[in-house]
Amino acid sequence: MTEARGPAKKAPMREVLAEAAFQLFLERGFEQTTVDDIVARAGVGRRSFFRYFPSKEDAVFPDHERCLADMTAFLDAAGDEEPVGAVCDAARLVLRMYTANPEFSVQRYRLTQEVPGLRTYELSVVRRYERTMAGYLRGRYSEAEDGSLRAEVIAASVVAAHNNALRSWLRSGGEGDADAAVDHALGLVRDGWGKSGETAPDADEEVVVMVVSKRAPMWRVVQRVESALGED
Amino acid sequence: MTEARGPAKKAPMREVLAEAAFQLFLERGFEQTTVDDIVARAGVGRRSFFRYFPSKEDAVFPDHERCLADMTAFLDAAGDEEPVGAVCDAARLVLRMYTANPEFSVQRYRLTQEVPGLRTYELSVVRRYERTMAGYLRGRYSEAEDGSLRAEVIAASVVAAHNNALRSWLRSGGEGDADAAVDHALGLVRDGWGKSGETAPDADEEVVVMVVSKRAPMWRVVQRVESALGED
Repeated sequence: MTEARGPAKKAPMREVLAEAAFQLFLERGFEQTTVDDIVARAGVGRRSFFRYFPSKEDAVFPDHERCLADMTAFLDAAGDEEPVGAVCDAARLVLRMYTANPEFSVQRYRLTQEVPGLRTYELSVVRRYERTMAGYLRGRYSEAEDGSLRAEVIAASVVAAHNNALRSWLRSGGEGDADAAVDHALGLVRDGWGKSGETAPDADEEVVVMVVSKRAPMWRVVQRVESALGED
Repeated sequence: MTEARGPAKKAPMREVLAEAAFQLFLERGFEQTTVDDIVARAGVGRRSFFRYFPSKEDAVFPDHERCLADMTAFLDAAGDEEPVGAVCDAARLVLRMYTANPEFSVQRYRLTQEVPGLRTYELSVVRRYERTMAGYLRGRYSEAEDGSLRAEVIAASVVAAHNNALRSWLRSGGEGDADAAVDHALGLVRDGWGKSGETAPDADEEVVVMVVSKRAPMWRVVQRVESALGED
């Protein structure tokens, strides 16, 4: 959402460059397109490009920097929220960036699959999201046993779940309900880790996680609870 | 373990090159060292280098390709083993590669921290391990609900846990028991996901996961079990 700055609504230079770059990448291929081609198409000087994008790769993913900043701000403001829920909500910011423009996201996904350099770039970006989430969780779990370990495992789980759902949606050509798919995937992580690190780090506070079939008879369940609590 | 091939035990060319490269990287820095410098130090021709390593980065991590092949073979042979346990064991193959030569691993860790190109390379390698594990789990969970999602989340968790422990060990300069640290970290993942995808995908087979404080009184526990089972 950009506000009009005067009577002639003009797209910001950054967007103009990113759009010119992307069109050329689709037409000619990523490797075959030079920065000179891009600035010629956009009708600006060569130095303008590097003012906005450190590299050609960055022009393919023009919104990740802003999204990373949004995520950091979001988590800074998360306060006392349940931490796993907070990072799941943070992951949804990334999804929103993709679903804001399905056609572009799907085309870019296909382009990325074909260009190893773009896949590597994307890996680095994904890692930065993961580190942002892990940093937040590490702060929230600073008093918990294995806090840093839990933080990193949960951040990796959230990223993997989000990306599994996002990738299915991109592969399908942007069909279906991406929000519902990501909610479902993140639900799996919340079920697994939702209570992680919530308890105080006392040895006394040790928890028991039980998995019980709904078909198990009650006596079996009680027996397992007792045995897990060491009261048998 | 290399077998002697004759009376004069000679290190294989690949090792000689990797060692020459690494010494130069430490002495002059990674960026400042050229392939010409490396082959001059090793006393071989320029084309020999590229016969063994596609790039300078590959010479810094000469054992990952073999370790990836070992992991694939290990998981192919895993058969009916409990799947989360199998990928945890697969992750230990990577640890073993690092702990086989602590001094080299620690020096390389420090070098990698200083060179962005090496960090990117490492991210790609880590991703390949993760995909190898996820591929195995996907096969094992092919009948389970959300099998592909579970496979990717668990693979990401295992990698994150392993790397958390490995990184601590590398940061400490290779002090302490890396095996015990990785076992502990992987234990967290097994506790969280160990039963994942084991049950059949019947709706009837739905499971309940409960987290209960060890200090909770038994009546509270039973109440929660009953309420979770919808028998209240």
